[in-house]
Amino acid sequence: MGVVVNLDEGKKGSASIRNLIELTAADMGAVNELILSKAGSDVAMIPEVANHLISSGGKRLRPMLTLAAAQMFGYQGDHHVKLATSVEFMHTATLLHDDVVDESDLRRGKSTARMIWGNQASVLVGDFLLGQAFRMMVDVGSLEALDILSTAASVIAEGEVLQLAVAKNLETTEDEHFNVIKAKTAALFAAAAEVGPVIANRSKTEKAALRSYGMNLGLAFQLVDDALDYGGSAKDLGKNVGDDFREGKVTLPVILAYRRGSPEERVFWKDAIEEGNADDAKLEHAIALMAKHNAIGDTIARARHFGDIACDALAPLDATPQKDALLEVIDFCISRVV
Amino acid sequence: MGVVVNLDEGKKGSASIRNLIELTAADMGAVNELILSKAGSDVAMIPEVANHLISSGGKRLRPMLTLAAAQMFGYQGDHHVKLATSVEFMHTATLLHDDVVDESDLRRGKSTARMIWGNQASVLVGDFLLGQAFRMMVDVGSLEALDILSTAASVIAEGEVLQLAVAKNLETTEDEHFNVIKAKTAALFAAAAEVGPVIANRSKTEKAALRSYGMNLGLAFQLVDDALDYGGSAKDLGKNVGDDFREGKVTLPVILAYRRGSPEERVFWKDAIEEGNADDAKLEHAIALMAKHNAIGDTIARARHFGDIACDALAPLDATPQKDALLEVIDFCISRVV
Repeated sequence: MGVVVNLDEGKKGSASIRNLIELTAADMGAVNELILSKAGSDVAMIPEVANHLISSGGKRLRPMLTLAAAQMFGYQGDHHVKLATSVEFMHTATLLHDDVVDESDLRRGKSTARMIWGNQASVLVGDFLLGQAFRMMVDVGSLEALDILSTAASVIAEGEVLQLAVAKNLETTEDEHFNVIKAKTAALFAAAAEVGPVIANRSKTEKAALRSYGMNLGLAFQLVDDALDYGGSAKDLGKNVGDDFREGKVTLPVILAYRRGSPEERVFWKDAIEEGNADDAKLEHAIALMAKHNAIGDTIARARHFGDIACDALAPLDATPQKDALLEVIDFCISRVV
Repeated sequence: MGVVVNLDEGKKGSASIRNLIELTAADMGAVNELILSKAGSDVAMIPEVANHLISSGGKRLRPMLTLAAAQMFGYQGDHHVKLATSVEFMHTATLLHDDVVDESDLRRGKSTARMIWGNQASVLVGDFLLGQAFRMMVDVGSLEALDILSTAASVIAEGEVLQLAVAKNLETTEDEHFNVIKAKTAALFAAAAEVGPVIANRSKTEKAALRSYGMNLGLAFQLVDDALDYGGSAKDLGKNVGDDFREGKVTLPVILAYRRGSPEERVFWKDAIEEGNADDAKLEHAIALMAKHNAIGDTIARARHFGDIACDALAPLDATPQKDALLEVIDFCISRVV
């Protein structure tokens, strides 16, 4: 690589998802069993491809949100386990399709499924997991949860197409970019959190609170992820620093550096992002320009803004260990980078 | 092409889907409106890609099955229109993904979406249409219909992966092949027909009858389609004769010709299907070998077998114009080729 940027300062802060992990440990055991069971098939390639990604060490943040959001409202039963598994399958399906769309070689530090089994298997196993996700939701039988999650599925795909449509366009505004990440990332966080109070039959206000929490957490999460692409190490990231840059992705750090740049700098960005001249030397220059214009710092500032909204969304709710754990997730997401 | 095989004899028989089209014309008007509305999006690429395929002149047989199956049980309301549209969207999503998986250039005589907008758009717009299909089903609110259609979505994807796993394997048995086409084609026909009596709140027997009709019709339909790939003209087919051959697809005509072939003939098949040496001269030879072993004739005989079962599935039901129209569909499917 040759490019290492020190974003580690203060990284060892107190924020963690340890409490979330502890509170949801028993339920996540059930989720993990259900994942293995529902990714199973007599067609051997299906569990092979699915387990490659499922076992690759993602944090499983999204299903934990569903579990904690159900627990905090005293939900009793096993529907939260099924919906959490559905959420993880929707996410996994999206990753499988994303890797095909982005032509990615690595995901979480491992070869992508498409590199091992081909684009075809990635597309089709993604479709299978999406089908299984819907079957589990139907099994739960809550039309409201089905509505929330099926709408999220449409919105995610719509966001991905929008991202494709604005791809390599440096004139993308911040607002347009927020629309993309709201759809492609935040919508699933929002749905994952909202279905908790839904299956616990809670009030409209409480459902709206969890939805708002999830949506804003998702926005913060994605912005931090975009910032991390220009810092950190591949080991921490599970991807290579500069992947977005090499793929010509117009993320917020790029948008800010481009908009604030001199005419000469904009020529550099056009050449790198739109023309694809994005080698390691260019990446180093890109990171220097971002530092000059505080593009990373301000991306994190935007993430904090959404994190604050997520925090206030939960403010009116009764104090519970789950609420505290969900609040810590916000800090954790942002402290990944600062 | 240079290869034309005369399978036209008797093709102008009386069998048609005219009655089905007439009976469902008003409802199909509503379906077509809903298709345009639900394929709409502020993201312009979505309706562009979707309408390219939607307007390309498919017969829309599957949604007509849903409409006729609801009508024959006296269903009143508009849920059948929504479910029929969902079925068509599921089918369209599958086609978009299939074209990526098969790397197809042509579909129904037009360039495939992936050739115009790229694999990425085909994958993502397919995902969007699938999401929209589920939203419409949720809107209908029948958990039983949701169960049937979401199960079909999983099974279809599973069948596609199975097809991928056995791809280019000439040792595939007829039984294994039936499992593939049952999952990838017949499952959606079965679901499309079954949801008719489901939303009309009819008996278990009546639902089972329509399911069996759809499943067996789907099997017959796919077998005839596979036979047509070795005869007919590209104009009739909307695809090129020999597409399956050139892609090395192991369809029933190939399975029969291979199993019945001499050792020398099997060497030919291995070379063509497994090694991909499948030019026009090879195609001509393949068709000659199929004629020698009556592989096409016996593929049609298998199709008739399933068509007969589909016919008997409906036998106990009261005579209605819809029942007659559905019976005619069986003959129509088979008469496409003989």
